[in-house]
Amino acid sequence: MSASHARPLSPGCRILGIDPGSQRTGVGIIDVDALGKLTHVFHGALAVAGEDTFPLRLKRIFDELAAIISEHRPAECGIERVFMARNADSALKLGQARGAAICAVVSQGLAVHEYAPTEVKQAVVGSGRGDKTQVQHMIGVLLGIKGPLQPDAADALAIAVTHAHTRASLARVCIPRTAWRRR
Amino acid sequence: MSASHARPLSPGCRILGIDPGSQRTGVGIIDVDALGKLTHVFHGALAVAGEDTFPLRLKRIFDELAAIISEHRPAECGIERVFMARNADSALKLGQARGAAICAVVSQGLAVHEYAPTEVKQAVVGSGRGDKTQVQHMIGVLLGIKGPLQPDAADALAIAVTHAHTRASLARVCIPRTAWRRR
Repeated sequence: MSASHARPLSPGCRILGIDPGSQRTGVGIIDVDALGKLTHVFHGALAVAGEDTFPLRLKRIFDELAAIISEHRPAECGIERVFMARNADSALKLGQARGAAICAVVSQGLAVHEYAPTEVKQAVVGSGRGDKTQVQHMIGVLLGIKGPLQPDAADALAIAVTHAHTRASLARVCIPRTAWRRR
Repeated sequence: MSASHARPLSPGCRILGIDPGSQRTGVGIIDVDALGKLTHVFHGALAVAGEDTFPLRLKRIFDELAAIISEHRPAECGIERVFMARNADSALKLGQARGAAICAVVSQGLAVHEYAPTEVKQAVVGSGRGDKTQVQHMIGVLLGIKGPLQPDAADALAIAVTHAHTRASLARVCIPRTAWRRR
């Protein structure tokens, strides 16, 4: 993203993005400065499918996310608002993973902001109907990440970028018109 | 339950039962001694529907369950295996609440044992097709609880009772036949 694309007057901030899933939870962290410049901090995907019981999978999501938050100290968090799942069984599994992820975040005092997949695609590729490959490509370009990016990690970074845009837009709304003219 | 109904040779234990729900989470704690005698310790229902955001509801489930566990120090936990929800949306909400509850339990080092609703009814009223009123009534009788019992709390106590029966049965399975003859 160029500075002209998002020029918030809000203070800089470290943002955690989470793309929850019952088998893999994507995690991405970026810094956004007061001019809207984005910097990649961390990304990864917690693969939990191999754990022997579902409660242990949830524990792993909770513990690893808590450790990542403790290490990188993000100030705000964005998480994907879940699309309608294929069926009640997969919705239940996804819901449990999402519940574990949200608990890890709120337990450490971070507020959680939810974004629909269409909002994330709109923010990152300029269209709510962009596909996953476009999101991966654009996140690589925006954050200067070389090489292939794991799809869940790319989605998590995309959610963090979406939150960076949104908080910048909210900051603008609160700025008096005189301040806009001076820019 | 009479002692003849469940006569475990396993050591006594404090058991936490949880009936998770997106609006109310039932919690029950019982003690079971080495002869299978059950004693009521605690029951309640965490009503979280009034919280302003869904993440805050999850935080409340997580925090309050963690506080109850810290106070009463159960050693084992039973939780209801979720029936197929009506639709994907309600399954997602229920899944998130269940994820928060399980995280609170596994974060404090307790193993989680899952029981299907039919197993719980079978253990408490002797038939997998018993209704909620029967469960409430039988739990009141088994644990000597006077007065009406909130349905979610009764279900949570019923899950704890089911786990008490199950661990007793497992203990029996491990006992050599000679030990059985001596009883």
